[in-house]
Amino acid sequence: MLGEILLRTQKQRPLVHCIANYVTANDCANLLLAMNASPVMADEPLEMEDINALCSGHVLNLGTLNEARIDAMLTAGRAANRQGRPLILDPVGVGASAFRRNAAMKLLDKLSFSVIRGNASEIETLVSGVGSGRGVDADLSAQTSCENAVELAQRSGAVIVMSGEKDVVADGRHIYRVYNGDAMMGRVTGAGCMLSALIGAFVSANPENVLEASLAAVCMMGVCGEHARRRMNGQDGNGSYRNYLIDAINRLRPEELEEEAHYEME
Amino acid sequence: MLGEILLRTQKQRPLVHCIANYVTANDCANLLLAMNASPVMADEPLEMEDINALCSGHVLNLGTLNEARIDAMLTAGRAANRQGRPLILDPVGVGASAFRRNAAMKLLDKLSFSVIRGNASEIETLVSGVGSGRGVDADLSAQTSCENAVELAQRSGAVIVMSGEKDVVADGRHIYRVYNGDAMMGRVTGAGCMLSALIGAFVSANPENVLEASLAAVCMMGVCGEHARRRMNGQDGNGSYRNYLIDAINRLRPEELEEEAHYEME
Amino acid sequence: MLGEILLRTQKQRPLVHCIANYVTANDCANLLLAMNASPVMADEPLEMEDINALCSGHVLNLGTLNEARIDAMLTAGRAANRQGRPLILDPVGVGASAFRRNAAMKLLDKLSFSVIRGNASEIETLVSGVGSGRGVDADLSAQTSCENAVELAQRSGAVIVMSGEKDVVADGRHIYRVYNGDAMMGRVTGAGCMLSALIGAFVSANPENVLEASLAAVCMMGVCGEHARRRMNGQDGNGSYRNYLIDAINRLRPEELEEEAHYEME
Repeated sequence: MLGEILLRTQKQRPLVHCIANYVTANDCANLLLAMNASPVMADEPLEMEDINALCSGHVLNLGTLNEARIDAMLTAGRAANRQGRPLILDPVGVGASAFRRNAAMKLLDKLSFSVIRGNASEIETLVSGVGSGRGVDADLSAQTSCENAVELAQRSGAVIVMSGEKDVVADGRHIYRVYNGDAMMGRVTGAGCMLSALIGAFVSANPENVLEASLAAVCMMGVCGEHARRRMNGQDGNGSYRNYLIDAINRLRPEELEEEAHYEME
Repeated sequence: MLGEILLRTQKQRPLVHCIANYVTANDCANLLLAMNASPVMADEPLEMEDINALCSGHVLNLGTLNEARIDAMLTAGRAANRQGRPLILDPVGVGASAFRRNAAMKLLDKLSFSVIRGNASEIETLVSGVGSGRGVDADLSAQTSCENAVELAQRSGAVIVMSGEKDVVADGRHIYRVYNGDAMMGRVTGAGCMLSALIGAFVSANPENVLEASLAAVCMMGVCGEHARRRMNGQDGNGSYRNYLIDAINRLRPEELEEEAHYEME
Repeated sequence: MLGEILLRTQKQRPLVHCIANYVTANDCANLLLAMNASPVMADEPLEMEDINALCSGHVLNLGTLNEARIDAMLTAGRAANRQGRPLILDPVGVGASAFRRNAAMKLLDKLSFSVIRGNASEIETLVSGVGSGRGVDADLSAQTSCENAVELAQRSGAVIVMSGEKDVVADGRHIYRVYNGDAMMGRVTGAGCMLSALIGAFVSANPENVLEASLAAVCMMGVCGEHARRRMNGQDGNGSYRNYLIDAINRLRPEELEEEAHYEME
């Protein structure tokens, strides 16, 4: 199943619009190109309608957020909802400030998301409305986190992807746990942003199957994180690892994803 | 000829001002440093005059465009025109929105460019005033595209560099076709932005010979794209390729450019 | 001594807030992750107070400066001063425009910095109030530069880190000269920004010892620049070197820093 979802995505070459943050925009763009999708990075509110007409889906990333970017997200999101195009939210560091929390709550209130992807602490903040932790880190219990994911899925109608040691992919009824991945991914800035962009590509090309498309993206990122780790030699660190990760996305074949994906439905 | 143009550029070490986009600014800066030029990335309108007094040329890039950036471009461009410094336009994704189209038309109307570099679809948009295609992609016939380039050259007085499977470098009278390059370049975000920055360096150091300086930059990028491809091993993808491309720019010697450049005048 | 300072930093995993520029933000974030610190990149004035409450220190970087960023810097800086958290200034290209000079003077006037890190030309501009040179380059005599550093240290109360062929680390009474480093670092955009971020991590974890923490960061960057150089093969250039540099930061052990640091107190 996952291999077919990847194959369809590679063939359709979806154009994915990202309202990215300036820390990780380059990596997200190269990751999309790596898997045969195309990025369009734009955040001027005045061009969101036109971009929506061109693209297959949108990814809204709360990193390096400011007022203008919130406007752009609302405009892009409304256009996406009106046209029925997939809309992904990455609530980067949402627990770090009231400003980000309020922005996220406003987006959740006004827009309908296909997928929300964050770590356990970010998902907790979206559920509780209260800030937590060290910005982009997370240290809740696995049980509590999973309950949060399901609750947010039920409230929002979105598929929730919760990144962590084991990733969780949940809609209101099903929960997948993904065992792929490597600890080095936590040492690369934007590993989460890149996964959100990847989900954007998969869901844009498989809009009738958001849950499994999200699962496929999570497994692909994890499998490629493992491939990247196996390439590391004695002098490599997180700098080279980042490139190996993008390389692996570029090279992974559908049958490899099918074979190496390690997940189970709860 | 091209080797001499590269040698002069490397010796002069031009300081190139880029109003860059935040997706590819880092790569453009490293590419300029790679070939012994220096970047200054700045987009605050209030400092454009001072930056102009310091730098040898300006590159205006329409990626991640917004109102403030358009102001900066107009101010920098006017200063460049007044001082007779080279001014390069990269109309990134100009067909993607009315906002970018209008901005580009305003820049073309108010400013005099030395070089305009885009893909066939972007050049088409500048000629026709009508949006087209998937943002940064292009699929016009080679013949139509080339006519567009010549027409834009004649209208604007700029040298037109049109990137594609075969690159075109044209002023109103001469047309060069460049056969260097590699398909992997299309899988690296900002390959076009990097070429525009490189053109900025070459033309800044060779302002009396904009056509051949542009040709030299296009050939250098293509030759280095080939070098980067030859370095790829069985696990490398577009992540490593990006680094190899910058590495190749860093290492290319003038005599290699002279020998490996593959172009013809029509 | 330096090894212990590194060890303490790696163990404490400080969360470092960077008001970064969009050219080098990604590299700064990966560098912080490389040495086991965590980055939070944010520049919205409205969230500076909340970010301050979470983080261990702040790094203000003047690259790609604009009015909104100056507001954010003032707000973050005031919060840092009020809470007694380390505050680092990187006056990128401060000599390039009156706009940046005035912004830097305002920041120096309103805020109390723990460390200021720049090249000789940037430090000269901060001392003299007059612009100089090619933006981010520097060509003053070593003697004059060192006097500038000491004067700025005495005036501002900050430790001054002056990057150059030999780095200088000075407070009003002591001067260290650091002999580590490699010329390739000048070919990587953001090598200075990365050092400032690294200083932010070291000083955040060792706030009682700002001078030696800064020295440790400068030595670490230099030692890692040497390690990265030794990895280069016949086809590598500044693209690969950038990754090797971050890799080296990721792998350096405290005892290696202790052994390979090459500095003397004047």
